[in-house]
Amino acid sequence: MAHTVELIAVGTELLLGNIVNSDAQMLSRELSALGLNVLYHSVVGDNPGRLEQALEIAKGRADIIITTGGLGPTCDDLTKQTLAKSFGKPLVFHPDIAERISGFFHSLGREMTENNLQQAELPEGCTVFQNDWGTAPGCAFESEGIHVLMLPGPPFECSNMFRYRAVDYLRQLSEGAIVSRSLRIFGMGEAAVEQELRSRMNELTNPTLAPYAKEGEVELRITAKADTDGEAQALLAPVEQELRERLGDVIYGADVSSLEEVVFGLLKEKGLTLGTAESCTGGLIAKRITDMAGVSAVFRGGVVSYTNAVKQNVLGVSAELLAEHGAVSEPVAKAMAEGARRVLGCDLAVSATGVAGPDSDDRGNPVGLVYVALSTPESCTVQKLSLGAERGRIRTTAANYALDLVRRYLLTK
Amino acid sequence: MAHTVELIAVGTELLLGNIVNSDAQMLSRELSALGLNVLYHSVVGDNPGRLEQALEIAKGRADIIITTGGLGPTCDDLTKQTLAKSFGKPLVFHPDIAERISGFFHSLGREMTENNLQQAELPEGCTVFQNDWGTAPGCAFESEGIHVLMLPGPPFECSNMFRYRAVDYLRQLSEGAIVSRSLRIFGMGEAAVEQELRSRMNELTNPTLAPYAKEGEVELRITAKADTDGEAQALLAPVEQELRERLGDVIYGADVSSLEEVVFGLLKEKGLTLGTAESCTGGLIAKRITDMAGVSAVFRGGVVSYTNAVKQNVLGVSAELLAEHGAVSEPVAKAMAEGARRVLGCDLAVSATGVAGPDSDDRGNPVGLVYVALSTPESCTVQKLSLGAERGRIRTTAANYALDLVRRYLLTK
Repeated sequence: MAHTVELIAVGTELLLGNIVNSDAQMLSRELSALGLNVLYHSVVGDNPGRLEQALEIAKGRADIIITTGGLGPTCDDLTKQTLAKSFGKPLVFHPDIAERISGFFHSLGREMTENNLQQAELPEGCTVFQNDWGTAPGCAFESEGIHVLMLPGPPFECSNMFRYRAVDYLRQLSEGAIVSRSLRIFGMGEAAVEQELRSRMNELTNPTLAPYAKEGEVELRITAKADTDGEAQALLAPVEQELRERLGDVIYGADVSSLEEVVFGLLKEKGLTLGTAESCTGGLIAKRITDMAGVSAVFRGGVVSYTNAVKQNVLGVSAELLAEHGAVSEPVAKAMAEGARRVLGCDLAVSATGVAGPDSDDRGNPVGLVYVALSTPESCTVQKLSLGAERGRIRTTAANYALDLVRRYLLTK
Repeated sequence: MAHTVELIAVGTELLLGNIVNSDAQMLSRELSALGLNVLYHSVVGDNPGRLEQALEIAKGRADIIITTGGLGPTCDDLTKQTLAKSFGKPLVFHPDIAERISGFFHSLGREMTENNLQQAELPEGCTVFQNDWGTAPGCAFESEGIHVLMLPGPPFECSNMFRYRAVDYLRQLSEGAIVSRSLRIFGMGEAAVEQELRSRMNELTNPTLAPYAKEGEVELRITAKADTDGEAQALLAPVEQELRERLGDVIYGADVSSLEEVVFGLLKEKGLTLGTAESCTGGLIAKRITDMAGVSAVFRGGVVSYTNAVKQNVLGVSAELLAEHGAVSEPVAKAMAEGARRVLGCDLAVSATGVAGPDSDDRGNPVGLVYVALSTPESCTVQKLSLGAERGRIRTTAANYALDLVRRYLLTK
C-alpha cells in the first residue's frame, strides 16, 4: 500500500507571514524523491487546541504525519505536548539528552535556563533524532497505524535533521528503491534546458527527468524507481550518459552541492592553490570557498578591494590603469587577478570587478556589467558579463562565473 | 465578531516541492495588516475530491476562505468548478471577459485555444476581479455566511490581484488595524530572553509579545491591535520602551534586517570607515557588509588571510608573533586588525581568527575557539569566544560578534 504523507507546520510567524514555509518545500521535495506521496500541507499557529484538531484531520487522511516547529522552550514544546496527548503517549525524561543540552550551553559559555530541560522529555518508546544543529531533539513513533515524526522549525535545523536523522526512518517505509541523481548545470538557462530536453522529458516515465531553477543555475533531477537499488541505478545510468553527451560541460557535477565544491575537488586533484581579488562580489567568492571544511589545503586567501586605493596599495594595480580604464574594465580585472596571484602567493587567482548597483558607476557603466578574470602561470583570461539588474543576483552570478572560470581551466590541466 | 481566515492553495507543484508557497506568506502578511486573523494554511494538489474535502474542513473553522491557484485552462479551472459545486453556485458566462481573454491572446500574437474561454464562466452573483496581469479572472462571493475569494496562483498575478482587486472587498470585512514592531537582539540567547520576559508575555494580551530564534540571534515581536493605526501604535510604544529599559543594548535595532545594517547606519552617521581582516570567517564579514547597496561610502575593503604567509605578507603580522602564539590567539587577532587598518587605510578595522572545524588546529585549540578584535584610532580590543561545534554556525556567530564589536564602539562615539 502506498503511504500518504501530511506535513503540519506549527508557528504563528507563518500565519503572520513573517516567514515562508520553506520547510514544507524542502520536505516535499525530499519525500517525493523517497517515493512517498505528500498529499497535504497544513499550517496552524502556536495553539494547542487548533493543533489537536489539525492532528485529528490528518489522522483521517494520512498515515505518515510530519510536524515542523513548535519544539523548544519558547513555545513550551507545544507540538510535542500536543502530539503526546493526542496519541496517548506519556513523556519520558532522557538524562542523556538533558546532559547534551546543558553541554551545548556550556560550550557556548552561556547559562542554561531551567525551561530548556523540558526538551529532554520525549514520547515513550520513540526513536530519538539527536539534534546536532540546535537544542530541541526530534523524534518518531508509530501509533494507531500512523507514523509520526517531529522536526524542529528553523530551516537549517529542519533540513539537517531530515537528512541525517529522519531519512533512515522513512526509508524503511517506502517500498522498493528510488534512486535519484542530480546533475548541476551552469551556463545554460532553465528555458534553454527545458527547450532542449522537452520531448525527452515527455517520453521518459522511468526514470523521470525534471529541471529545477536554482539561483543562477539549473538542476536536472533524474529519478528511477525499481525493486532494488541496483535495478534503479541501472535504469538511471544510460539517461545520465545521454544527458552528458547532449549538454556537454555545462554540466559541472552530479550529486554535488555547488560549483565551489567541484573547484575544491579539482584543486586538490591537480595540487594547485587559489586566491581571490574581489570588488563587486565583496568577499562572496572567498566566503563560498571557505564555507567548506578542509579548504585551507588549497585556498590561500583573498583581497576585497572595495576602493581604488586598496586596488593600488594592496593588489598593486597601477594608478594609470585605473585612471585610464576605470575600476570596472578588462585591464583592471586582469591586473587585480595578477596582483592577487603575486601578493597571496598562489598558483591561480580569480578576480571580479563590476557594477552591482543600484546605480551605474561614475563612468556610466551600467548596473550588471561585470568582468571576471583568471590569472594562471601561463596566462590571464577575462570574461565580460551582463548580469541583469538585481544586486544580490548580480553578485551571486558573478561569483558563479568566476568559479566556473577556475573550473574550466582546471579541467584542461 | 472577529473574522477567521483560511488560505487554501491548490497545486501539485507545491506538494512536490517544486515551488514554495510564497502566496501564503504574502497574503498572511497583507491580511494581518488589514486586521484579519489568518488561522490556517492548507495545500492540496490538483485533485477535485481532495479540494472538496479541504473546503468542507475550512467551512467548519473559517468564515473567509481564500484560494490561490487552480484557475485557468491548464488545470481545467479546477478551483472554480469545485468551489461553485461546493457552494451550490451555477457558473455564468461573461461575454465581456471572453472578449478580454481573446484580446489578450491577440495582443501577444498568439492563437487562443478553445479551453481558454472556460475562464469567462464565473459563479452567479460574484464580484469579478479583473486580471490585468494574466488571463484567469478571480472573484469573490458570499454564501452560507462565508466569504470566498479566488486568486490566481502565479505569485506576480496573485500579489497584484490581491493588492488592486481583493483588498477593497476585504477592507469592508476587517475591523481595526494591526501594527507590529520587531526588536532585534544579539548577545542574549532565546531561552534567556524568554525566561526574562515570560511573566510579561503571559500578562500581555494587547499588544502581544513573542520571541523568535533566528540564526544566532533573537527577534522579539510586539503586535498591537486597535481600531486605528494610531491607536495600535500608541499601545505598542510603551511596551517597546519597557523592553528597551529592561534588556538594554543587547537590542541592536527595531524593524531592521541585520547587524550589518545597523553598523552601516552608524558608520555613515559618525563619518567613519571600516575594513576587515578575516581568517576563520573567510570573507563572510566583508560579504555581509557589501550585501548592502551604497556601502562603498564607508567600507574600504578587506583581507582574507587564510594562511600565515598572507597574515605576514599582506597584513604585516610578525613571524615571531605567529610562531610564539599561533594564528588563533589574542595577539594575532590584534595584529590582524591593526594591520588591516594600516594597509586598507580605514578608521576602524575588525578581525576574526579561530578554529571553524571540523578539526582542532595544530596547537590543539578546540573547534569553536575564536578571537575577534577591533582596532580604532584610540586602542585595540579583543574578545575571546567559544562558539560551539558546527562550522557554519561558528562562522556566522563569529561574524555577528565582530559586527557587534563595531556597533558597540560606534555607540560610544
